[in-house]
Amino acid sequence: MPETKVIVNLSNRHIHLSREDVEILFGPGYQLKKTKDLGQPGQFACEETLVVKGPKGSLEGVRILGPERRETQCEILASDVFKLGLPGCPVRESGQLEGSVPMEVVGPKGSVRKTKGLIIAKRHIHFDPEAAARFGVVDKELVSLRVGGERSAIFENLVCRVHPTYALECHLDFDEGNAVGIGSGAMGEVLKK
Amino acid sequence: MPETKVIVNLSNRHIHLSREDVEILFGPGYQLKKTKDLGQPGQFACEETLVVKGPKGSLEGVRILGPERRETQCEILASDVFKLGLPGCPVRESGQLEGSVPMEVVGPKGSVRKTKGLIIAKRHIHFDPEAAARFGVVDKELVSLRVGGERSAIFENLVCRVHPTYALECHLDFDEGNAVGIGSGAMGEVLKK
Repeated sequence: MPETKVIVNLSNRHIHLSREDVEILFGPGYQLKKTKDLGQPGQFACEETLVVKGPKGSLEGVRILGPERRETQCEILASDVFKLGLPGCPVRESGQLEGSVPMEVVGPKGSVRKTKGLIIAKRHIHFDPEAAARFGVVDKELVSLRVGGERSAIFENLVCRVHPTYALECHLDFDEGNAVGIGSGAMGEVLKK
Repeated sequence: MPETKVIVNLSNRHIHLSREDVEILFGPGYQLKKTKDLGQPGQFACEETLVVKGPKGSLEGVRILGPERRETQCEILASDVFKLGLPGCPVRESGQLEGSVPMEVVGPKGSVRKTKGLIIAKRHIHFDPEAAARFGVVDKELVSLRVGGERSAIFENLVCRVHPTYALECHLDFDEGNAVGIGSGAMGEVLKK
């Protein structure tokens, strides 16, 4: 029998920054301050937050996650889409910014208009290769996840992401967690098609 | 083959008031002003909104739904629980206020402290008896509902509520709608156990 139980952690809206954008937003040479390690090795939450603007409204206090990345990318919640005035914001895997929507990011020392980078993160599960073998899944495979107690649901179309630098962990967002009444640290059950 | 397709409408946080509480909050003899009929016959949204307070924070602009009811009851979202400071707020069917939590309701002419009445609404589907027969469900039966496109999910434990005054309609809340990327008017598929 393949393994099925996975820890689920909930993501709030957050932003990843390129080195270039860190320097525009915070000043030349600025180094982001780590406050907390996250579930994925090497990933961390930063002390700093930013304002992200859409055509209709803004999100304040958007947490920066480190380390820096090649491209700036902001992952919002479906419930943020109305506030920003961006009904067309697509659901994408992290790093897949083709077709993502423009945004303005405002920091303490400057602001930057990006022609792309705003997405709703696609539900996904991180696996190291050994865990993927135990679960019987391969990279890019779509699976379902049953999670929650009284308000349980089976979320469909979670992407399995397999990489040696990953740790076994499912990422849902706050909307999804609220819909099933769970917090970070809940356990889910992977269901194969 | 039983019928399976049902329209899904999304509920935001809202409040139902007793006559007594209408008079405390808005003044003696006050009549609530209807602005929009809702999916269920005789139910309507009112022009008036209220502030609902918990131990830690408040919700502004909570819409009143009419007509008046025997008991005042406020249905919030799981995402409101943190803002109010009420992590123990239970999931209940509308009208089942046993074990629900206290709240303060503030209106333009007065305020009222209720010892109970705050709940997270349990997902449910309204059926008239003819529709229930076509779907093959009975009152109080629990079913699942598949809904959503790219971000689809199967919500479990929806209560079937069958009554001659009801119209066929599924009620999810904004958290649940956001989790699967739908708006009001989407179609869902009822799945029997």
